[in-house]
Amino acid sequence: MHRTRLYDAAQLEHIVAGMVRQAAGLLAGRTRVAIVGILRRGAPLADRVHAGLIRDHGLVDCVRLDLRIKRYADDLRLLHPDTQLTENPEHAAIDLEGHTVLVVDDVVYRGHSLLRAVQYLAGKRPAEIRTVLLVDRGVACLPLRTDIAGVRLEVAPRDIIECRVPPYEPHFQIDLLQPA
Amino acid sequence: MHRTRLYDAAQLEHIVAGMVRQAAGLLAGRTRVAIVGILRRGAPLADRVHAGLIRDHGLVDCVRLDLRIKRYADDLRLLHPDTQLTENPEHAAIDLEGHTVLVVDDVVYRGHSLLRAVQYLAGKRPAEIRTVLLVDRGVACLPLRTDIAGVRLEVAPRDIIECRVPPYEPHFQIDLLQPA
Amino acid sequence: MHRTRLYDAAQLEHIVAGMVRQAAGLLAGRTRVAIVGILRRGAPLADRVHAGLIRDHGLVDCVRLDLRIKRYADDLRLLHPDTQLTENPEHAAIDLEGHTVLVVDDVVYRGHSLLRAVQYLAGKRPAEIRTVLLVDRGVACLPLRTDIAGVRLEVAPRDIIECRVPPYEPHFQIDLLQPA
Amino acid sequence: MHRTRLYDAAQLEHIVAGMVRQAAGLLAGRTRVAIVGILRRGAPLADRVHAGLIRDHGLVDCVRLDLRIKRYADDLRLLHPDTQLTENPEHAAIDLEGHTVLVVDDVVYRGHSLLRAVQYLAGKRPAEIRTVLLVDRGVACLPLRTDIAGVRLEVAPRDIIECRVPPYEPHFQIDLLQPA
Repeated sequence: MHRTRLYDAAQLEHIVAGMVRQAAGLLAGRTRVAIVGILRRGAPLADRVHAGLIRDHGLVDCVRLDLRIKRYADDLRLLHPDTQLTENPEHAAIDLEGHTVLVVDDVVYRGHSLLRAVQYLAGKRPAEIRTVLLVDRGVACLPLRTDIAGVRLEVAPRDIIECRVPPYEPHFQIDLLQPA
Repeated sequence: MHRTRLYDAAQLEHIVAGMVRQAAGLLAGRTRVAIVGILRRGAPLADRVHAGLIRDHGLVDCVRLDLRIKRYADDLRLLHPDTQLTENPEHAAIDLEGHTVLVVDDVVYRGHSLLRAVQYLAGKRPAEIRTVLLVDRGVACLPLRTDIAGVRLEVAPRDIIECRVPPYEPHFQIDLLQPA
Repeated sequence: MHRTRLYDAAQLEHIVAGMVRQAAGLLAGRTRVAIVGILRRGAPLADRVHAGLIRDHGLVDCVRLDLRIKRYADDLRLLHPDTQLTENPEHAAIDLEGHTVLVVDDVVYRGHSLLRAVQYLAGKRPAEIRTVLLVDRGVACLPLRTDIAGVRLEVAPRDIIECRVPPYEPHFQIDLLQPA
Repeated sequence: MHRTRLYDAAQLEHIVAGMVRQAAGLLAGRTRVAIVGILRRGAPLADRVHAGLIRDHGLVDCVRLDLRIKRYADDLRLLHPDTQLTENPEHAAIDLEGHTVLVVDDVVYRGHSLLRAVQYLAGKRPAEIRTVLLVDRGVACLPLRTDIAGVRLEVAPRDIIECRVPPYEPHFQIDLLQPA
């Protein structure tokens, strides 16, 4: 694979600052707010959005949690993985009723993880659920709306957008990976 | 309630014709197609889209089914209805793998029924799911994307958009209902 | 004509507050800002956006002006009116270089007035021009983008959306006018 | 500058085919159509859209012309170039009244050329003007709407999207150019 840097850390700080401003707009007037990261890379991104809203937009008392979602395939169904959400026992008791929930992830490819997260969260009776993505590739095959997109990068179907987000990677970057 | 006609049958024929053209664009090159109505009024609308695609755009061999979804509240949870899908036993065996699925409904209010339909259909491993709505009110609190909207009518929150669709009503109309 | 109230003054206060929040988002980090109303009804709407940005979002030192644009037809070209902008002599000297300009109007029908305003303002070398509309009817035949829309109301082609804006009308309202 | 190929000719054939399908949708029911390229690279792209509409969608009797637009700076205004359209004498007599006009270009950067083209064409009293772009970078500072975008590529501000379009370049490609 050939790797090309599309965004470096300094450029992404600007992008995330814009996402935080948009999130502040969506949350205006809301008093019950939850910010939910999709593990793995959605979690540190949710942390960044959360920190920005507290620092610059007066957010207080925000529920902050992460969801673990996996595409799962056992031996018999290798070609047809199911999307599974592993509920954290602590989450079972979390009250999101009447909350505005921001679900944060790095990049949506087909949309299965995001759908699974929305479905789980909708069961907790929030007032509304909004999606926040660092990269929108424009290829989701499920009809989920991106409410806040850092950048839209409709690269060729066979190419890969790799978001590198600390602490999982050393530097905050968006890379394009292309088959050699 | 005060009733105002926003669209009559003749005007809606033009709107539906435009929706059919957009649907034909989404389906270009696809050989496996399913059109799914959400009961009640999504079903005759799905029939209209289906008929238009057959008549004017060469659609053949299309799966055509309807889903029954209800918001359900028993005595104990009156304020928190669940969204239930009653699976038609015939549907359990329907193969949608690799299909492009158009889900059709009249108007989305909060988005729970549409989410439930998408979730059910996603379990059948289609290639993609697209949403087709006669009216997009712009108030959905769930992050579902409207791929094809007949008309966008962002009326005041307390007002009601009523789609009247034969055979459930005598004439095809969109009405605005306002508290007196 | 039959008249139906779609939004009253209290409902519109919420809509305008949302437009102001979105405008604040577009202006974040900008130090040179201009707010331009299109006469007649865009002017008091620009005043409302301007006042909201000063009061709630710390806007200072903003250029504020209005443009007079008319569709003009002399005897020989009755069927082909030209869109004319009457330049206020004071405006000739106004410096918009490097500014972020918000152009405000009540409702776009075909788009000619808005295009004329954008064209005039672009000649003053601003950094960027954004459009702010109380109502987007979705029927513009010129390819102008609505950056901020209060409400999207895609009513039937023969129907009229009438924005009533003080001081031109006694109450702030959006009405639908339909042929009898 | 470091060069990365984002789309090769085979991938772009699919993208252009999708643009042609969308254009066919916009033109449905229209009998008077004009396709206008912006020189240089918009012209061969307009040829491709034109050819696709004739071959696959039954387009006949379409006006086909190209516009030459330049950003012009004389000695005194080097920092403030004007956008000039050089009218082809043959174009002065072209009748676009009542036509649906598709304006085609490769990539919009700030939007000045496209605004100049729309302004010129609007003077010819068409029924509507729609914009068709191979790449939408999402950075236009003028409020022009992209009606049909091949791909959305919001790359970092300092990076360059270079569309390579025969006959101006040997192969049809989209490249990303990054400062070394």
